Amino acid sequence: MKKENETELLFGETIHETEESSKKMTRRKIARPIEKKVSPIKRTILKRDERSVLGHGLKIIPLGGLEQIGMNITAFEYEDSIIVVDCGLSFPGDEMLGIDLVIPDISYLKEHSDKVKGFVITHGHEDHIGALPYALKEINVPVYATKLTMGLIENKLKENVLPKPVRRKIVKYGQSVNLGCFRVEFIRTNHSISDAAALAIFSPAGTVIHTGDFKVDFTPVNGKTIDLQRFAELGKKGVLALMCDSTNVMKLGYTMSEKTVGRTFDEIFADNAKSRIIVATFASNVDRVQQVINSAEKYGRKIVVEGRSMVNVISTATELGYLSVPKHIMIDMEEMKNYPSEKLVLITTGSQGEAMAALSRMAASIHRKVSIEPGDTVIFSSRPIPGNEKSVSKVINELAEKGAKVIEQDTHVSGHASQEEIKLIYALTKPKYAIPVHGEYRHLKYHAELAQELGIPKENTIVLSSGDMLEITEEKAILVGKVQAQGIMVDGLGVGDVGNIVLRDRQHLSENGLIIIVLTLEKYTNQLLAGPDIVSRGFVYVRESEYLIDEAKSIVYAALERCLDNNISDWAKIKTEIKDSLSDYLWKKMKRNPMILPIIMEVE
Amino acid sequence: MKKENETELLFGETIHETEESSKKMTRRKIARPIEKKVSPIKRTILKRDERSVLGHGLKIIPLGGLEQIGMNITAFEYEDSIIVVDCGLSFPGDEMLGIDLVIPDISYLKEHSDKVKGFVITHGHEDHIGALPYALKEINVPVYATKLTMGLIENKLKENVLPKPVRRKIVKYGQSVNLGCFRVEFIRTNHSISDAAALAIFSPAGTVIHTGDFKVDFTPVNGKTIDLQRFAELGKKGVLALMCDSTNVMKLGYTMSEKTVGRTFDEIFADNAKSRIIVATFASNVDRVQQVINSAEKYGRKIVVEGRSMVNVISTATELGYLSVPKHIMIDMEEMKNYPSEKLVLITTGSQGEAMAALSRMAASIHRKVSIEPGDTVIFSSRPIPGNEKSVSKVINELAEKGAKVIEQDTHVSGHASQEEIKLIYALTKPKYAIPVHGEYRHLKYHAELAQELGIPKENTIVLSSGDMLEITEEKAILVGKVQAQGIMVDGLGVGDVGNIVLRDRQHLSENGLIIIVLTLEKYTNQLLAGPDIVSRGFVYVRESEYLIDEAKSIVYAALERCLDNNISDWAKIKTEIKDSLSDYLWKKMKRNPMILPIIMEVE
Repeated sequence: MKKENETELLFGETIHETEESSKKMTRRKIARPIEKKVSPIKRTILKRDERSVLGHGLKIIPLGGLEQIGMNITAFEYEDSIIVVDCGLSFPGDEMLGIDLVIPDISYLKEHSDKVKGFVITHGHEDHIGALPYALKEINVPVYATKLTMGLIENKLKENVLPKPVRRKIVKYGQSVNLGCFRVEFIRTNHSISDAAALAIFSPAGTVIHTGDFKVDFTPVNGKTIDLQRFAELGKKGVLALMCDSTNVMKLGYTMSEKTVGRTFDEIFADNAKSRIIVATFASNVDRVQQVINSAEKYGRKIVVEGRSMVNVISTATELGYLSVPKHIMIDMEEMKNYPSEKLVLITTGSQGEAMAALSRMAASIHRKVSIEPGDTVIFSSRPIPGNEKSVSKVINELAEKGAKVIEQDTHVSGHASQEEIKLIYALTKPKYAIPVHGEYRHLKYHAELAQELGIPKENTIVLSSGDMLEITEEKAILVGKVQAQGIMVDGLGVGDVGNIVLRDRQHLSENGLIIIVLTLEKYTNQLLAGPDIVSRGFVYVRESEYLIDEAKSIVYAALERCLDNNISDWAKIKTEIKDSLSDYLWKKMKRNPMILPIIMEVE
Repeated sequence: MKKENETELLFGETIHETEESSKKMTRRKIARPIEKKVSPIKRTILKRDERSVLGHGLKIIPLGGLEQIGMNITAFEYEDSIIVVDCGLSFPGDEMLGIDLVIPDISYLKEHSDKVKGFVITHGHEDHIGALPYALKEINVPVYATKLTMGLIENKLKENVLPKPVRRKIVKYGQSVNLGCFRVEFIRTNHSISDAAALAIFSPAGTVIHTGDFKVDFTPVNGKTIDLQRFAELGKKGVLALMCDSTNVMKLGYTMSEKTVGRTFDEIFADNAKSRIIVATFASNVDRVQQVINSAEKYGRKIVVEGRSMVNVISTATELGYLSVPKHIMIDMEEMKNYPSEKLVLITTGSQGEAMAALSRMAASIHRKVSIEPGDTVIFSSRPIPGNEKSVSKVINELAEKGAKVIEQDTHVSGHASQEEIKLIYALTKPKYAIPVHGEYRHLKYHAELAQELGIPKENTIVLSSGDMLEITEEKAILVGKVQAQGIMVDGLGVGDVGNIVLRDRQHLSENGLIIIVLTLEKYTNQLLAGPDIVSRGFVYVRESEYLIDEAKSIVYAALERCLDNNISDWAKIKTEIKDSLSDYLWKKMKRNPMILPIIMEVE
């Protein structure tokens, strides 16, 4: 019985055979012959009820975060226990017009909600915690995280009304939590936010280490260096799989210590002793903010904090003891006027050129309380996230036009491990399987090749896609299935109610605008009682195009007459005739293709 | 008389005084106090008929290209002669939804068309020639350019029907043309397109050197090194002003020679002897294409050219002798199947990830003739232009998923001079005035400061905005006015018929979609004869939101009843009532804000 339903595929086989034998796989899957090269593991598609092909395998099911940046979430399943690592959101792509954010599809978790023991969170960035409020509405299970991470999660939960309160447990580095047949230990790492953790996931099938986002910082600003000893100890005992951050895998060498930025800040403060200093950075980078505070204190400046998320994070971090703020150094924006420019530092959001962020509003002269003055020094303590380059440029130009000096050099370091740090983690943990996480496809592929260079056999380096269900034991790793894992788009309060048809319409409207033609017909005789009237939006400036609108009207009128003369009374046909004639006319006349919407009303 | 109308402003004055005394200046101008620091030249606003304040000054009027990348065009006016350097287009910003391209406003040239002697073109890139077909329709004057540049201009003119034929004259390096009281000499430079020229513009007021886009390449692929001797000779004789390329002014050191890319190509061809090689680059970079051809010949591969602009440019360049193509090396796409992969090179467009370009279509598996195979080597011989990073990333991921190896390292050099090359041009020409061109504001400002370091007095380094009218003589440089110089948006065949209102509607539609409410009223009684009907696009997926649409309908119905019960018969008021009630409902219910269009028809 099992034999008949089991279809084993080796990635080494030809495409033809693959297509034959994997009818349940999605089309896209099949169209990706590259996987043959990268992960020559066995791919077995089984019937649902026979899924545990390996008997006692651990299933790893990334529901997001692979082949994309953001929306990190991975389920681990062993028999009747499921745990979920992270629950992040991603920001919409350029083609997702009007979409606010994208959250993972947790249908698989909902289907097996009786098994789900909890969410285990690695750190407090949006791409790791942002979808929690949505997920917890659907599946109310406990959340485990370190102190600052939990503080940031609680900020999020406060803004969202959940049907039931959620159990939350703060876990310290070195502590473990038991979740069904799993035990999860939190291990100290370094990252661009405090309190980041890697996870050691102990299962009956073996130990998996998930690094979360991390770097190796030997001189961190706050806290201690990543717990390399514990990685080594676990490695000694035997690690089944390492799931390691791939974000910077293509960067050679080591990522610089956060502390180097503090030294740059000191230099800038010294060199610009006569200027007001404005520092834009990521709100969540508490250590970066700490270093601005340190320099401000050293050079005798007062600090003003601006931007909603900056104010929120700084207050949470201060409360929880992650920021050490000297007494009286923070002042309100209203008090700024009592101090000369050279005695002030502003810490603000907007380092990505986001249109509504505080710095962008200052640069565009639409900030209500701060205006950029000639002589201001503005530090961008950040690097533009891909896609934001033009917005950042725009803000820099606006600042320069107002006479501000803009500094971008040496004012930022990444929070992600470069190649040598990644190699170090492999050397310490010596995993059987390498399953790269956090990255676009090219990063994951590159990471898999790097792991092979480090001695992991090719068949044990596994590039997964979101939705893949991988089952591993000491003996084997097999792709046993595929679950739903497309992102779900959120627009306003609507979750998932905007799909491809709506997006396609938005795209069409955005590029070409719209022409509406309304007319009223007598129900039985089809006599024209009113109209055709033409209304347009986003097409041409109507007041200067009256001639065009008149011509369009007469074309519609002619099309209508043709229909009525030929006794065509099917409204769908009439609409098509109107639409096609007008569309032809506009394309010939002006090579444009607005959306045309004929609307017919009937009156008895 | 003159005294009364003349208003002299020194940039050193306070903003308050500036505002008082420059009512004719635009608001934006006044809001830029930075200019005080950078160009402390005198700013004089005169009545139109008194504009030649300096008696015999040369007027320099950039109509585009300053404070932006692209759309380069500058008019030079002396008494009754005007010449125009370049006539480029720019590509639309992210906010210009549906716009195809942006061309300069040449109203000033049209107003003074009797004076305009011709267009002098520095090189054949779109941002220097792209708007010529539009401009020549409005003002038919001769065009002067080097051979390849003229070939590319002629390609453009062929695609556009002009009312009258245009006189064209090919100019060689070292030659001059007399245009009214100007003489313009073409000087050899290096750039990422062959046949680029700097211009020496001899006027009765003195000599201006305009570099065009340039770099210093001591080992160019085709042609010779920039004519540094001529720059020096002109410098010896005295240069009034230098208008120098600012694109790479913030890059330290020297830009690498084009030839270094050829060496990388050779290495890649040697290392990937078993792969098919695909090279994506800019169609206009003839020297880059030459180097691909050279490597192909050396390693015994046949060449296939793909992508419309690539085919066009290669055929023009070959015809005019700018490409040396060994016999029988080029084959048609149809012949590809007769050769093994390792004997083929594809040269293609799409290096910027443009959705419809050949490489992007191959990557997305929608190219009709080429599909990416595992083992293909794809070279990106380009760098993403700011704003294209995400599209390029997308294509690279798609290629990697199909098993292609993607190479981006050392496969591109810039065509623009870095800081040391710019300094060299200053050292050779020793101009009295430095007027940086080609760049965003921050580049121009940085360039002005660099010129000051090189010994040009601060008051002689002049940062202009597009539309500024500068008058210079040996004695003085004064801003004497401001002309229209906003870009004009082109959408299909429409030039300038899409303005801010249309764009704002497109933006609104793209983010929120649209709800149309139609109803028919009896003319005299205001009785509801049909409707209200609701049509939506780009808002929600209607089939899954019937309940919402029903609720919306009843809200509209209620609003309408309120109006009719209160005897409100003013349709504008009825529409507003409907719109506001529905808008409130949707915002409360789903935090969304679609465009709402109530349409009322009347039947007698």
